[in-house]
Amino acid sequence: MRGFNDLSELAPEAVEHLLDTAKRLEKHPEPRALEGKVLALLFLSPSLRTLTSFQAAMLRLGGGSFVASPQGGIHGLESRRGVTMDGVAAEHIREAIPVLASYGDALGIRAFAARESLDDDIEDRDFQAMAELSPVPIINMESAIRHPCQSLADWKTMDDLGLPRAGGKFVLSWANHPRALPLAVPASTLQMAAMRGMEVTVLRPDEFALPEKVMARAHESAASSGGSIRESDDPREALSGATVVYAKAWSSASHYGDDDAQRALKKELTGWCVEESWFDRAAPDCRFMHCLPVRRGVVVSDEVLEGERSVVIHQARNRMWAQMAVLYEILKEAS
Amino acid sequence: MRGFNDLSELAPEAVEHLLDTAKRLEKHPEPRALEGKVLALLFLSPSLRTLTSFQAAMLRLGGGSFVASPQGGIHGLESRRGVTMDGVAAEHIREAIPVLASYGDALGIRAFAARESLDDDIEDRDFQAMAELSPVPIINMESAIRHPCQSLADWKTMDDLGLPRAGGKFVLSWANHPRALPLAVPASTLQMAAMRGMEVTVLRPDEFALPEKVMARAHESAASSGGSIRESDDPREALSGATVVYAKAWSSASHYGDDDAQRALKKELTGWCVEESWFDRAAPDCRFMHCLPVRRGVVVSDEVLEGERSVVIHQARNRMWAQMAVLYEILKEAS
Amino acid sequence: MRGFNDLSELAPEAVEHLLDTAKRLEKHPEPRALEGKVLALLFLSPSLRTLTSFQAAMLRLGGGSFVASPQGGIHGLESRRGVTMDGVAAEHIREAIPVLASYGDALGIRAFAARESLDDDIEDRDFQAMAELSPVPIINMESAIRHPCQSLADWKTMDDLGLPRAGGKFVLSWANHPRALPLAVPASTLQMAAMRGMEVTVLRPDEFALPEKVMARAHESAASSGGSIRESDDPREALSGATVVYAKAWSSASHYGDDDAQRALKKELTGWCVEESWFDRAAPDCRFMHCLPVRRGVVVSDEVLEGERSVVIHQARNRMWAQMAVLYEILKEAS
Repeated sequence: MRGFNDLSELAPEAVEHLLDTAKRLEKHPEPRALEGKVLALLFLSPSLRTLTSFQAAMLRLGGGSFVASPQGGIHGLESRRGVTMDGVAAEHIREAIPVLASYGDALGIRAFAARESLDDDIEDRDFQAMAELSPVPIINMESAIRHPCQSLADWKTMDDLGLPRAGGKFVLSWANHPRALPLAVPASTLQMAAMRGMEVTVLRPDEFALPEKVMARAHESAASSGGSIRESDDPREALSGATVVYAKAWSSASHYGDDDAQRALKKELTGWCVEESWFDRAAPDCRFMHCLPVRRGVVVSDEVLEGERSVVIHQARNRMWAQMAVLYEILKEAS
Repeated sequence: MRGFNDLSELAPEAVEHLLDTAKRLEKHPEPRALEGKVLALLFLSPSLRTLTSFQAAMLRLGGGSFVASPQGGIHGLESRRGVTMDGVAAEHIREAIPVLASYGDALGIRAFAARESLDDDIEDRDFQAMAELSPVPIINMESAIRHPCQSLADWKTMDDLGLPRAGGKFVLSWANHPRALPLAVPASTLQMAAMRGMEVTVLRPDEFALPEKVMARAHESAASSGGSIRESDDPREALSGATVVYAKAWSSASHYGDDDAQRALKKELTGWCVEESWFDRAAPDCRFMHCLPVRRGVVVSDEVLEGERSVVIHQARNRMWAQMAVLYEILKEAS
Repeated sequence: MRGFNDLSELAPEAVEHLLDTAKRLEKHPEPRALEGKVLALLFLSPSLRTLTSFQAAMLRLGGGSFVASPQGGIHGLESRRGVTMDGVAAEHIREAIPVLASYGDALGIRAFAARESLDDDIEDRDFQAMAELSPVPIINMESAIRHPCQSLADWKTMDDLGLPRAGGKFVLSWANHPRALPLAVPASTLQMAAMRGMEVTVLRPDEFALPEKVMARAHESAASSGGSIRESDDPREALSGATVVYAKAWSSASHYGDDDAQRALKKELTGWCVEESWFDRAAPDCRFMHCLPVRRGVVVSDEVLEGERSVVIHQARNRMWAQMAVLYEILKEAS
């Protein structure tokens, strides 16, 4: 496997193979599989799960990793082209990335959306420009529009719990949030649920409909997997018969990058906090999913988050096993 | 061994076994003992020795570790219950801890005293609440009232140097300091010296007597080990015949959490800086101990700290061997 | 090998041996060579390549490392002697260094020039004072006047590319920069090129001549290697027939530590940015070298940096292989 950027770039069998590898490594450790291998990790955005689960993943396979981050004692980084660097930034990303890559057998990059141009972010232009600078395989640790490690972990979580693929009702629900968040998780989650062949409902207020391109890609995946996608702005209706509710805050595409406008839009939407009453008409064992970190009392109530339907810790733990599978496939081949 | 929280929770033989393991690993490396094992480390308070010695300890046993810290690029963490998270903190400790724990085979947590309630701190309520969230063994890397890794290292240091257990005169001396410091080290050190069966004197100005509960616990340990505990406010008298002087600054229990009052109390106490003259009536080879970091010229003079009686570097180095023993007992059993 | 501080402290055969080891390890990995070995890393100055390449180097040899840095959650460090520590710094470097060293089998230290006294910096007094506190071998990861890891990597880079030793024309060129930078890289680079037996030209405006002592040491090395050293202030003349141009900004020795004066001196020198036209009379395949990080449009043009003559990424990558050789020679012997 040459890098890991998007689940939809993989054939269905390749996804199954990753899931099988993840499940196998969870049961049968291979503590020398990646002996002497090094994973370079570049964090241009904050992280808890990604930062620690990638380190743990490499250690459990007998390899190791190092972390570079502008918060962690390295020089400030410039990313604009053609600029005279007489300011604070001491190094250009066009040097930093090939250098870091050259110390690793693969390079993970996390870089949240710039949220300056919706089209640039949907096409993941910043991330692609960085990825092209690396001579070694790139792992997308969350970019403007993608979070494939999260999606693979979520897929495994639903498999672990025996949630049906065909016929499973997956509700991706928008939620309120004090900040304007990127589209990476909702876009990737929608794509993943569609690829898994589920009956997906995107539940959101009208102003927070996902961009057309994002919806179109997901429809394509649903068409080839036998799944389906619909939209709703009514929680009660959307959750009727639901197998799983996946909550996530995201920005409105119509005022993308305008944080004041986003705040104004959300003022009347404080009811978009997932509560136990939302599940009245859901399947009795309907699950609650979220990628974390989650704002308690804003995105979801304490009761739901700490209750039996919540599988958020299971999801987070699966980040490690999913990434171990990815690393195994990329780096074991290379050895 | 299921976690490591307090020396006094261990039977005397269990402590001896840890000390034996530490001494054995110091002499005979086992660089594959913990192959594929991962230690998760959460630092909610600053650290030098703990941060680095735990990493070194895992490496020397063939395993590895990762560090999470609010200073190190992860999201701000909320710890209050029932709060609506619409402020700066993006994640609740009730998610962060089980997630970090899920990536490790054990979880070390450092969290200094909140110093808001003396009783909460003495009962270690914040730490216990965090520890209960972890599905894997917890290692106390210093909490409000405990620092068992330091105490095990100090015990080993005295063993290494041949300092007698029964009959050894151990003086735990309060010292001045510009800041109001927690009670973890004095409480743990007192407990450790009592468990070791030594004749302990707590030397401190009246206003800095250790809390009753702390003294009572130590008296109990002394009773069962054959040691003894007394208090003094006179350095000259207390150090008479002393085998070892262990200096440490700590807060006054009577104005706990009130930093202005603490400062006022200490104004007249600048004489409480350990100097060579303190040792006039001590045993000729009386040792000086301190857990570090130490304020030169405030807690101890340069002369004593750099002199022959000082064993502070030996103590610090023993942190690694002591923690290797703890990790070995917790993680080797688990494998 | 007992530590690594300066290429010129090594016999020519010892340098060759390091280069051979670096080349061997690049081709034939030894992922268990340093099993159970620990490298302690203390960063008192920022870093990207050094920080990450040392970690990668230890991992590729089967060992590990840990990083301590005042930016990374450890206590503030005091370095002055005889001071009463009642301010912000909680720990003295005289404790911190032996403690960190005691957890490692070797200790790497990075500490940029204080730029308070030119003579202190040229004699590397701060670094030597720190190095003397360590009971384990010290690796110089850049001090006031030395950067031996960079120089070894650069030497290997020229070997890799087949650049001639005797007869190769090496131009070390001063370049403009918004900040007043230390002398470590120019001094080490000059020394390295001299030791390699090359015909070296130091190209700089008059105000930026390197200090006499630095020049004298390099002349000595050139004398024994059969190389030569001359100075010039004319890019066109200096680059005539050049095999390689190594650009670097550095401070003027005549106004050392006076940042305002340095800025004033550089106002008229914005032409000292390496551009393609500089190479008109150079050898056709003349290479461009720089240690990175580099300021685009100030030190070098985008065109040169991204063009075919630029080998800066190759240099950076060789940091890892060079350091692996150093670590191998220091730590493998110790095992």
